Amino acid sequence: MDKQTLIDTITKQVMARLNQPGSHSQGVKTSSCNCECHGNWDGVGNIADMLEAGAGRVSTIAPLGSCPDPALARFIDHTLLKPEATQADIEKLCQEAAENCFMSVCVNPYWVRTASKLLRGTGVKVCTVVGFPLGATPSRVKELETRIAIDDGAREIDMVINIGALKSGLYKEVENDIRAVVRATRGTVLSKVILETCLLTKEEIVTACKLSEKAGANFVKTSTGFSKGGAKIEDIRLMRQTVGDAMGVKASGGIRDHETALNMLMAGASRIGASASVAIVSCAQPAGGGKY
Amino acid sequence: MDKQTLIDTITKQVMARLNQPGSHSQGVKTSSCNCECHGNWDGVGNIADMLEAGAGRVSTIAPLGSCPDPALARFIDHTLLKPEATQADIEKLCQEAAENCFMSVCVNPYWVRTASKLLRGTGVKVCTVVGFPLGATPSRVKELETRIAIDDGAREIDMVINIGALKSGLYKEVENDIRAVVRATRGTVLSKVILETCLLTKEEIVTACKLSEKAGANFVKTSTGFSKGGAKIEDIRLMRQTVGDAMGVKASGGIRDHETALNMLMAGASRIGASASVAIVSCAQPAGGGKY
Repeated sequence: MDKQTLIDTITKQVMARLNQPGSHSQGVKTSSCNCECHGNWDGVGNIADMLEAGAGRVSTIAPLGSCPDPALARFIDHTLLKPEATQADIEKLCQEAAENCFMSVCVNPYWVRTASKLLRGTGVKVCTVVGFPLGATPSRVKELETRIAIDDGAREIDMVINIGALKSGLYKEVENDIRAVVRATRGTVLSKVILETCLLTKEEIVTACKLSEKAGANFVKTSTGFSKGGAKIEDIRLMRQTVGDAMGVKASGGIRDHETALNMLMAGASRIGASASVAIVSCAQPAGGGKY
Repeated sequence: MDKQTLIDTITKQVMARLNQPGSHSQGVKTSSCNCECHGNWDGVGNIADMLEAGAGRVSTIAPLGSCPDPALARFIDHTLLKPEATQADIEKLCQEAAENCFMSVCVNPYWVRTASKLLRGTGVKVCTVVGFPLGATPSRVKELETRIAIDDGAREIDMVINIGALKSGLYKEVENDIRAVVRATRGTVLSKVILETCLLTKEEIVTACKLSEKAGANFVKTSTGFSKGGAKIEDIRLMRQTVGDAMGVKASGGIRDHETALNMLMAGASRIGASASVAIVSCAQPAGGGKY
């Protein structure tokens, strides 16, 4: 099957699953900075609200699958976590996010304040990372990092689970670690738990999902993008199967094109983390792609 | 030149530079847990004290260069920063450090308390990392992370410089960020500043060294081991040239054998960070070597 046929087939299947007619994406104001525009999309209605509340699968997604695919933008955290990212890089990221109406930009904590200022009034949220990318910091540090990030303007927090503690069977510590971050979000900011699935066995993924749910997190997320591997379809399926519809599932790491992004959503993801977000929504051929 | 000839040549040169006779390492109690033993090495005297005070080059190192080379151990931070490291892995690391009299174990902050308990009374210090490995966290977080690590028993702090701020020309922010960590050490705990040299230009390395010195740090250090590259001889030379004898220079990332470790010391390093430390001091052939 060639690439285009594959895309068409997947698109058809997505459409069938979603029980919706074709594209309704004409309402998207891609050149505007007002990304409250999602409310204007025909048939999309309150998706953003649902997503913001950490909903699992969204069963009324309208226009996904078209190419270019601006409606997909609302599922994407436009991500730049390279340590060498400069202020100019962050400005470019925010500009792209506002133009494409991505759900958020995902930046390192130091850049949250800058991004928040730049995105004020655009409807694009600021997401940041905590205990990132190793997860092996004490809960008190993760908690304070979360609080400071929220003070600086973050509205979504992607924390890394304590992988070593999980693998040592210290489940209560892992759960309390997640809870410390969830508490610091005070119920007003989304919390996602990065499992780093490439380092875990299937059993550990299931355990990590259950601990995340028990601790009150809103999402489980596959990857940091800094380890040996990224999101895999089978891991997304397993995570969705474990958390049901109670939580969101974020696929991240190595997602560089439209087709892969759609596959992740089909497998159960409700959010995509990507740095190649502009290429994804414009259905451009994937670039070489770095590590991040 | 074959490998053995190369090793012999380097050994000779090190010996010549150090103006010392051959090996005096017979006093090392490798099987003991009392690494205060460095005081017993012939001709070594107060090296440990000098190193602990953050001294630059040590000009009276006696027994380095022999094979096996136990005296080299006192220059090594025995390192395990993999996020998936378990409690059992940390226990093994500490056991190896005590047996070989390494200067410290370098572990993630979550494991500092465990390592401190295990190493009590051995003379091996606990070193940890702050803002690691990306460096892009607010200074307040780095400061608290440092304080908690010290409370937990850390006696050396390896912080990551704010690379993005440095590349954005925000030098005052970079300096203040380092100073926040240095202040948190209260002058009783060693501070090292990881520059992540593989991401910097030569000019940026020089700037980073000067800012570290100005902020009162004890060491500059090349690498996290989590980026594109590790320690390079020419970077060590440049860092030593920039900081003179006022600071320590730590070479880390990709150092997996005795020969490379000696080369780093010859180029001006006064500390080595490595996970292959046991192989380094025993002059074993380097293993495949992971990323960390």
